[in-house]
Amino acid sequence: MRQRLRAPIVLPCDPDCSVLRDAVVDIEDDGRIGYVGPLADAPGDEPITDVSGVLLPGLVNTHAHTPMTVLRGMGGDLPLLRWLQEVIWPAEAQLSAADMRAGMLLGSVEMLRAGVTTSVEMYFHLDELADAVLQTGGRAVLTGGIIEAPGFTWRSLLDDVSKLIDTEGLRFGPGDRIEIGYGPHSAYTLTPEVLTEVAAAAHERDALMHIHVAEAALEDAAQRSSHGSVPKLLESLGFYGGRVIAAHCVHLSDEDISIFARHGVAVAHCPGSNAKLASGIARVRDLREAGVTVGIGTDGPASNDDLDLWEEVRLAAMLSRLSTMDASSLIAPDVLLMATRMGAAAIGRDDIGALEEGRWADIVHISTDAPAFSAGVDVPDAQLLSNVVWAAGARQVQDVWVAGDQVVRAGEPTRVDRFEAQAKAGAVTQRLLSGG
Amino acid sequence: MRQRLRAPIVLPCDPDCSVLRDAVVDIEDDGRIGYVGPLADAPGDEPITDVSGVLLPGLVNTHAHTPMTVLRGMGGDLPLLRWLQEVIWPAEAQLSAADMRAGMLLGSVEMLRAGVTTSVEMYFHLDELADAVLQTGGRAVLTGGIIEAPGFTWRSLLDDVSKLIDTEGLRFGPGDRIEIGYGPHSAYTLTPEVLTEVAAAAHERDALMHIHVAEAALEDAAQRSSHGSVPKLLESLGFYGGRVIAAHCVHLSDEDISIFARHGVAVAHCPGSNAKLASGIARVRDLREAGVTVGIGTDGPASNDDLDLWEEVRLAAMLSRLSTMDASSLIAPDVLLMATRMGAAAIGRDDIGALEEGRWADIVHISTDAPAFSAGVDVPDAQLLSNVVWAAGARQVQDVWVAGDQVVRAGEPTRVDRFEAQAKAGAVTQRLLSGG
Ligand SMILES: [Zn+2]
Ligand SMILES: [Zn+2]
Repeated sequence: MRQRLRAPIVLPCDPDCSVLRDAVVDIEDDGRIGYVGPLADAPGDEPITDVSGVLLPGLVNTHAHTPMTVLRGMGGDLPLLRWLQEVIWPAEAQLSAADMRAGMLLGSVEMLRAGVTTSVEMYFHLDELADAVLQTGGRAVLTGGIIEAPGFTWRSLLDDVSKLIDTEGLRFGPGDRIEIGYGPHSAYTLTPEVLTEVAAAAHERDALMHIHVAEAALEDAAQRSSHGSVPKLLESLGFYGGRVIAAHCVHLSDEDISIFARHGVAVAHCPGSNAKLASGIARVRDLREAGVTVGIGTDGPASNDDLDLWEEVRLAAMLSRLSTMDASSLIAPDVLLMATRMGAAAIGRDDIGALEEGRWADIVHISTDAPAFSAGVDVPDAQLLSNVVWAAGARQVQDVWVAGDQVVRAGEPTRVDRFEAQAKAGAVTQRLLSGG
Repeated sequence: MRQRLRAPIVLPCDPDCSVLRDAVVDIEDDGRIGYVGPLADAPGDEPITDVSGVLLPGLVNTHAHTPMTVLRGMGGDLPLLRWLQEVIWPAEAQLSAADMRAGMLLGSVEMLRAGVTTSVEMYFHLDELADAVLQTGGRAVLTGGIIEAPGFTWRSLLDDVSKLIDTEGLRFGPGDRIEIGYGPHSAYTLTPEVLTEVAAAAHERDALMHIHVAEAALEDAAQRSSHGSVPKLLESLGFYGGRVIAAHCVHLSDEDISIFARHGVAVAHCPGSNAKLASGIARVRDLREAGVTVGIGTDGPASNDDLDLWEEVRLAAMLSRLSTMDASSLIAPDVLLMATRMGAAAIGRDDIGALEEGRWADIVHISTDAPAFSAGVDVPDAQLLSNVVWAAGARQVQDVWVAGDQVVRAGEPTRVDRFEAQAKAGAVTQRLLSGG
């Protein structure tokens, strides 16, 4: 065994969102979790590493375009279309593979410091992004963006993803840190024929498909008039049947929801992005009641504007309560599980997202030295979970392990220099601002 | 002059939300601000204290019940009525004056660390609360809660406030840190006769009145059927005419809004509390367009659950965009001003809330060493403001001055021991949990 961590509180994120007290988490030599449970019942007589506070699984960010850290704040708060057309798209057209790598490196550091150990990305140049993630020691599911636009051909973007999987495998890197998948952008940017071809390639390789669905009213209305709805269109194309995560899903009908439920399509709920861009509030309670797995995502840091999934966790609860007018819709344990176990399930992974024997040891240590925990951890379970979710969050993250390797210590990354990562990404931003 | 602070960026929070570069803020010997502007134009040849990053005025939290830090997380996420009846009210009945002081002390530390230098409170035992605030070096407008409930008589609560003002003055303490006001709880807990008496006492002393209005649909509907609406009722009672801040105001008609505009009544918008408790979304854009001054508040830490006003600032923008379906409703400079200059104006204060000659030197220093500022501060004004509001927030607050005294240094309070403050408040919580 590599290490036995002992803490006053362990939140394994099992289906009941149990609170274990004076418990341990064993990290095995292969980077997976061994025993999780009360110290009193722990097997063997291993040396113990004591940590104060709370241990929980690393969070799973189910929808991101992390390399866009280099575009953060650009254009300020311009209205959406002007922002995209005048600022973001021209800037993105200037990004080289190395620029995207710099943005990914910084974003990976930022997420690890917030206790987000896995992100599901949709972007380009997956080999460069994988390198950046392996460098920080994080974990990512990198889905290659497939679009039709000047400078891109969907066919070569699709083939590049297939080739990468066929040569490197679906998962690779120490601790299976990298998974490759397909990121067909959306039904409003791709033809039905392209979507069908992407699905065939993904199904053949059991790869994740990651697509935007029904984010904004305007694009969605156009799809509805042409195809009934995007969920219907995708069903008619044989898109489902493999692993599919649909981001946003703000504008779904009851029928759309039952199509997703029937085909096991999961949803990446991005409350902050949907609010900031005035897209609306997804029907999370209805989705969950229909049996759809819902994870939480930040969306890209150019529109959110950070990668703090804890803030999204609270927003998920708040927006659900506003849209249902029910203060008990999505309570603390509900949203904590959405950000961990359900987030993993949403991308078809049962090897991350919980502290459970056999899963990868992706672990977050939260310090309880803060006003939020003034009464300590010897409080009722519901109060403890409430304090973790509502009053602690990213700023309390102290230490992070991925596949058993410590990648954050005392709030700072262990494998890369944060200042260097900031400087490199900052240089890209400055170059874009100066028009090059 | 006590100190000349120089920073790459100074946000004075003037009406245009200007961004000053390579600028200074002079702190005079009396704790007020002298010159604010570019270093190049600064008068005299004073020694300079260089700070990196951004200087801006301390934030103003326009609605809080801060002593409730000792109740934080209690009851977890129970539905609202059960939470109040089974957990919060019984616990509050157990709070002594010393308990409230312990809760206020911790909350004051928590706010100062987040860069919130002023809070507008509604609670009891104002003398104890004032002591706690003077101890941390923060600033507060303490409005004495006036209610009718077992164990309280409105008459003695009212008289206590008047007596405090008549003996100590409306404002007192070094740097006028404490202001006293009246906190008639609401129209649904007090009779029209009581509200009239409170208003007379407040008008006579030019004191602030701080009242809950139209927070939840249920209570508000009852008021509408009895009185037309709470704004109408208060108008008919002669409640207005002095300084009035109405908290929440989620359910206002067009007519209510114009009544507030006509009488100069300000609104404390509490987006997080209103979302978490499923109260709804206040009509902030309509209020502002009608000329009503709107500040931002956290509400009590038992229902929010922290005192991080930065999160409320972002929520104010996000919820406004959702309710108007307009992504340009409330942009970064709008909400930053609401949390500073407009917050001060909302409580009738022109001596705080901005870095401006003659106002008190309540100053926050934000570090730009973070992924959010990877491109540095040499970016366009809109991008800088966007990064400050959307991606930085409380965790970047390094130093805080109130009336020219440094009360936070490197993220920790200078005048009280944070661990002691946490321990004292925690002991109260533990006693409540154990049933005493
Ligand atoms: Zn997206
Ligand atoms: Zn209140």
